[in-house]
Amino acid sequence: MLVALAGGVGAARLLAGLLDVVDPATVTAVVNTGDDLVLHGLSISPDIDTVTYTLAGLDDRAQGWGLAGESWAVMGALEALGGASWFRLGDRDLATHLYRSERLARGATLSEVTAELAERLGLRLTLLPMSDDPVRTLVTIDAPSGGVEEISFQDYFVRLRHAVVVRSLRFSGAEAAHPAPGVLDALADAELIIGCPSNPLVSIGPLLAVPGIEDALVKRRDDVVAVSPIVGGAALKGPADRMLRELGHDPSALGVARLYAPWVGTLVIDDVDAALAPAVERERDRCVVTDTVMASRARAAALAEVVRGARA
Amino acid sequence: MLVALAGGVGAARLLAGLLDVVDPATVTAVVNTGDDLVLHGLSISPDIDTVTYTLAGLDDRAQGWGLAGESWAVMGALEALGGASWFRLGDRDLATHLYRSERLARGATLSEVTAELAERLGLRLTLLPMSDDPVRTLVTIDAPSGGVEEISFQDYFVRLRHAVVVRSLRFSGAEAAHPAPGVLDALADAELIIGCPSNPLVSIGPLLAVPGIEDALVKRRDDVVAVSPIVGGAALKGPADRMLRELGHDPSALGVARLYAPWVGTLVIDDVDAALAPAVERERDRCVVTDTVMASRARAAALAEVVRGARA
Repeated sequence: MLVALAGGVGAARLLAGLLDVVDPATVTAVVNTGDDLVLHGLSISPDIDTVTYTLAGLDDRAQGWGLAGESWAVMGALEALGGASWFRLGDRDLATHLYRSERLARGATLSEVTAELAERLGLRLTLLPMSDDPVRTLVTIDAPSGGVEEISFQDYFVRLRHAVVVRSLRFSGAEAAHPAPGVLDALADAELIIGCPSNPLVSIGPLLAVPGIEDALVKRRDDVVAVSPIVGGAALKGPADRMLRELGHDPSALGVARLYAPWVGTLVIDDVDAALAPAVERERDRCVVTDTVMASRARAAALAEVVRGARA
Repeated sequence: MLVALAGGVGAARLLAGLLDVVDPATVTAVVNTGDDLVLHGLSISPDIDTVTYTLAGLDDRAQGWGLAGESWAVMGALEALGGASWFRLGDRDLATHLYRSERLARGATLSEVTAELAERLGLRLTLLPMSDDPVRTLVTIDAPSGGVEEISFQDYFVRLRHAVVVRSLRFSGAEAAHPAPGVLDALADAELIIGCPSNPLVSIGPLLAVPGIEDALVKRRDDVVAVSPIVGGAALKGPADRMLRELGHDPSALGVARLYAPWVGTLVIDDVDAALAPAVERERDRCVVTDTVMASRARAAALAEVVRGARA
């Protein structure tokens, strides 16, 4: 059994490659929910949806979020009404949120809803939210008017297009949250645990903040292989590089190695960062250098194969 | 100033006619919210929306609900996911519910949201929900499995297509509800109060159940003119006739007259019910006989003119 710790797009691509090389029924993905939000009354789980849509082959790869061939009738009408339209929700995507919101309102857990949607879309892996309890990533930024301001992750990421300086992060609700059913067992029993190439601070960070998860990972350190999301000092997507720098970390694969040292035994870094390998190895047991840029499904599968064989 | 007490379709048609013959700025409609529901996380106010869409000229007249030229991308995708799709929500209609849900979540009152949506759609009358507090019409029906069951109004009306026997009604929350801001002042100050041709039990009934509204109407009885929604012993739309019978009332204009006697000074009944006029007059001060079937906008306007001149 393999367990993957997942954020959004990067994780979804690696998982898609992984499912090409192993039996999907042997894979469990534990997905970040710190990005979740309630908007327009709807419960939205962006990372779970990105993973679900991508693995179902429904994702809009060019855009990097949402569904391919999406229509926008609701958003168009909402804009005409003067409603909040900064968080773009396509019509088919909205159906997912309506489904989730109605099931949650009727007492289902996020785990149950996530499993139902995965099953309806034909997925065969086990998809788990990190927790059924609400954890919300809050971002303290330099306010335009001076001083600082704490806003939700999606306000930072989507509304402000992450074009602001981050001063600190907080995972509201994490201290009281429990890992979703199955998460700790999966981490204890896994043959291999994969840290997907997701933002270390706001995709993997919330998972580590749920009591019990980091402890479980530390115990399995030798069997944890993570892929650095930082390649040549830059994030392939999103603000991970700037955020690392702004929060006092080295925006490089080495910075990631240092952050992950307590629970990651092997770090996979990109060929362009080969010179960092010795320094990375000083932070941990093992560093594997390979092509980590998943420009195609075949390259994602090749990376997944390297990760499978990379254990310390 | 004119005040209209409104349910859904029948009220919307009379109001459309009324706005053709008087300055819309002089009209206040107080609309039933007992039919409101939260579904898929969305706050839906069917009667307010029917009135709003109709007065904005956006209603699907043939279908009798929703918007003309509506698209159904979200519902189609929701059905594909196996979600609850018995309450049909078109894409443009959904935008209304997203707008309302988000505004309510941010602390706006239903009155404020209703006014905003009316303004955005170009309406010039004052549209008020009967209350900003939740009032929910609950229907006790003969359960298919024997015994009785209490279900929400929309479960009864839409999901079961009102094809069940009603044993009783209850307006949950009504005893603690307050009339929305402006409702009691409008009723106290109106030159004329119009009871629209809506279901007496489940459209007008919830308004009367909000403490203060029926008392205000009783005080203005001489200035209240209601239009019977029962024509020739049948409801023009919906289950009002069966519901009256099932709950022990006469399913006729005379039955309506008896129900409304405490607060309606003048009842307008249809030409086909002319023979009932003497009996209706024994229940109240005055009965006016005219064509009440609003088959066209012109006939709705003609009915509105009769209503305006019908006061006792």
